[in-house]
Amino acid sequence: MSDIKELIGDKKLHGKITSAEEAARIIKKDMTLGCSGFTPSGYPKVVPTALAKRAEAEGPIPVGIWTGASTGPELDGVLASTGCIKKRFPYQTNDAIRKGINEGDIQFADVHLSHCAQNIRYGFYGKIDVAIIEAIRITPEGGIIPTSSVGNSNAFVEVADKVIVEINTVQPQGLDGIHDIYSPENPPHRKPIPITNVHDRIGTTYIPCDPAKIVAIVASDVKDSQRPLAPADEISSKMAANLIDFLSVEANAGKLPKGLLPLQSGVGNIANAVLEGLVAWPTDGLTVYTEVIQDSVFELLDTGKIAFASSTALTPSPDGAAKYYPRINEFKDRIVLRPQEISNNPEVIRRLGLIAMNTAVEVDIYGHVNSTMAGGTRMLNGIGGSGDFARNAYLTVFLCPSTSGGGKISKVVPFCSHVDHTEHDVDLIVTEYGVADLRGLSPRERSREIIERCAHPDYKEPLRDYKRRAEEGKGHEPHLLGEAFSWHERLRTNGTMKK
Amino acid sequence: MSDIKELIGDKKLHGKITSAEEAARIIKKDMTLGCSGFTPSGYPKVVPTALAKRAEAEGPIPVGIWTGASTGPELDGVLASTGCIKKRFPYQTNDAIRKGINEGDIQFADVHLSHCAQNIRYGFYGKIDVAIIEAIRITPEGGIIPTSSVGNSNAFVEVADKVIVEINTVQPQGLDGIHDIYSPENPPHRKPIPITNVHDRIGTTYIPCDPAKIVAIVASDVKDSQRPLAPADEISSKMAANLIDFLSVEANAGKLPKGLLPLQSGVGNIANAVLEGLVAWPTDGLTVYTEVIQDSVFELLDTGKIAFASSTALTPSPDGAAKYYPRINEFKDRIVLRPQEISNNPEVIRRLGLIAMNTAVEVDIYGHVNSTMAGGTRMLNGIGGSGDFARNAYLTVFLCPSTSGGGKISKVVPFCSHVDHTEHDVDLIVTEYGVADLRGLSPRERSREIIERCAHPDYKEPLRDYKRRAEEGKGHEPHLLGEAFSWHERLRTNGTMKK
Repeated sequence: MSDIKELIGDKKLHGKITSAEEAARIIKKDMTLGCSGFTPSGYPKVVPTALAKRAEAEGPIPVGIWTGASTGPELDGVLASTGCIKKRFPYQTNDAIRKGINEGDIQFADVHLSHCAQNIRYGFYGKIDVAIIEAIRITPEGGIIPTSSVGNSNAFVEVADKVIVEINTVQPQGLDGIHDIYSPENPPHRKPIPITNVHDRIGTTYIPCDPAKIVAIVASDVKDSQRPLAPADEISSKMAANLIDFLSVEANAGKLPKGLLPLQSGVGNIANAVLEGLVAWPTDGLTVYTEVIQDSVFELLDTGKIAFASSTALTPSPDGAAKYYPRINEFKDRIVLRPQEISNNPEVIRRLGLIAMNTAVEVDIYGHVNSTMAGGTRMLNGIGGSGDFARNAYLTVFLCPSTSGGGKISKVVPFCSHVDHTEHDVDLIVTEYGVADLRGLSPRERSREIIERCAHPDYKEPLRDYKRRAEEGKGHEPHLLGEAFSWHERLRTNGTMKK
Repeated sequence: MSDIKELIGDKKLHGKITSAEEAARIIKKDMTLGCSGFTPSGYPKVVPTALAKRAEAEGPIPVGIWTGASTGPELDGVLASTGCIKKRFPYQTNDAIRKGINEGDIQFADVHLSHCAQNIRYGFYGKIDVAIIEAIRITPEGGIIPTSSVGNSNAFVEVADKVIVEINTVQPQGLDGIHDIYSPENPPHRKPIPITNVHDRIGTTYIPCDPAKIVAIVASDVKDSQRPLAPADEISSKMAANLIDFLSVEANAGKLPKGLLPLQSGVGNIANAVLEGLVAWPTDGLTVYTEVIQDSVFELLDTGKIAFASSTALTPSPDGAAKYYPRINEFKDRIVLRPQEISNNPEVIRRLGLIAMNTAVEVDIYGHVNSTMAGGTRMLNGIGGSGDFARNAYLTVFLCPSTSGGGKISKVVPFCSHVDHTEHDVDLIVTEYGVADLRGLSPRERSREIIERCAHPDYKEPLRDYKRRAEEGKGHEPHLLGEAFSWHERLRTNGTMKK
């Protein structure tokens, strides 16, 4: 590990350099910690690991952990497995945390990612005791330059009593200059966010921080625990092709610009497949305004298909990081990393007119979408930014395979067992079978489109049967409430939604 | 009726003056009409009535009717009762239309009110053949000055092939100057909406219109069919008092400014009661940024308690109109009427930091809200602007009495039979029993708050029992899907949710 003094421009802070163990001692039971990190990128690693070690020796040190979104095993993993997380905001993907949430041991509040920072500043969630921020370096003025994500770090630094900085010496120093930190004022003093193009820069390249708040600086040489991406499978590729065909038709009909509008795409394999599919789009110079930059965006930036990408995190796979991080300087003038309050901001999303593409856990025949919960009860990951984008986009798309569990689960159901996005917020539903275009349709029209175009053939007739019998009872959005969840109940008791 | 020539500044248009019957002949079967009107205010009256008369003689002339929101009997009523409405956007309150919607005869698309105009401009809903706009007069340049609402009229005039103007001679001419018409450009050219204060004016006092589009001008002397407001009943008053007490505590704790933040309040008696309750607020100079101005806002403007009100419609009761319309000039510099795309705009709502207060049809134990549908199936009115405000406000409040139907219906249920606002969008739930503050709480914490603070005593133990048994099965948001809708089913079969 190199001497981190040279990475701390403000020499008065050199006296704050300490060990992870010493820094972890600042953290007391029942504190609330605001940690950097969005996806397994840019999260603190050595201080949480030291805290977990202390807990192993001394017993659990339960704290509240607020981050940007999910993080990696060296934060969420080690703290959950040592019983140190009592409350967790606003998104997670870690197995141990998910287990704790579903056992009722960890209180999880599932918040729109764009709402998190302002609600923290408003004081709605109480105070933040300590912010722990991963940085590539500290400027001479005490500004903190984040690593591979921004998330809520700027808000945490603003409101926290104390700040611990982890200087990570293995994150690419070339990230310096990629960030654009802007914090809106609170009402009634808030001004328009002056972004009118995906590439607009409106803030600073560092997180301003009063040096007096910085209580410890710790060296780290632990890499982000990136997750591998599966190659696109046949079903993901079909979904991507269905959507891209649809966008082509819209563009040819003049309903979308030939160069499309800024693209947003969720996290994961399906999202990655959709963007990969755009490699054959006839026009170069596409733009991306999203919350994560996965491998496909690096690839399309590399070929020029994508001209610019705005996000709050770099989320490459290990292969992607190995390929693109050493070349980060080549991408730096075509990528900006913003606070998630800005990457996911309704004002900017609506102004720019995004094409928002997110995955669904299940959809129902009227176009409601479940993004978070299995069987209405068991938390998977959280709503993340899907609501920020879905509500405010130019065109809102939800993708899911028509079935899962080897065909035993239909992703198109009579009634979503949990509703995260309502019928009012969904334009298109895409499965490997087709695209249902719901814009301007009444519920009866929507259910016909969704069943006929998107459902798996094995479930079409049962869905038609439900629709037919429900409509006999009249109503605007006909339902048979007594059997609305019978498909989920059958799955629970028989292991399949099939009769 | 006065000669309307003097109300048409552009003399070249005098030749377009015609009868309502002649103007109605421009409308053909299967056309789509974009009509002014938001609540029973500012909607065209004599042309739709003439169209309905023609339908009585010739048989139904089915058309699509798009408006700002609900309208009055001389538009929705006469056309629905003559079978002339085949499609209806984006909100309604008329009995005949509601019946048609619930029979499946009228296709109703229930859209966020702020989304409507842009989706029309994007071409998502097809073309508008004829716009019918109620006006107080036409300027020398052909600009149309609306009457008591703006709604989507600017968008209709922009996109329609033809425009019919109803010059209403009994609407107060003093409304001239109250409107502020601003149409955002479409992406990718959209700019920030430059409103940073409730009172900011950013547009024109008239709807710009190419005079060549105006195909008919018709005189009208029919008043808006305003609806009476019931005096606040005991339950509404208690809900209002509970909410205002809560706001007082927040303001005293420094979590809200002493003068609050701009207030939004839905349509109807409960909303009116809440605003009336603010008469005793210690600070003058409150502001309102909302979609309707009811009697209470006029009253509080009159006393100075409210300094300024922004809205898209004036919706006084008949008594309120009789009292305040003759004095409209006294209010004109403290009221602005904007397009609903601006009054309900997420960008502006979030920037200004509203306190959004809307009523719920039912809420569930985890904080999901049903705003639209009885028993999950039967449309009441529509989502209106509640989603625009709820998602983007500083503080989002839903109010409802704890029961209805003489106690046979609990408004707090295990699972909402229709979800219009998700748990991610709701801060406070208020009934006559109390206030549940859900900010930052996990589902298990929320269900405790909602049941203990808001539910009616008759339903508390059954709700606790559901919660207890559901939590035995674990999960983040514990449910028993097999009985989640059993309360609604019991109501349907037994006429009561009680066992």
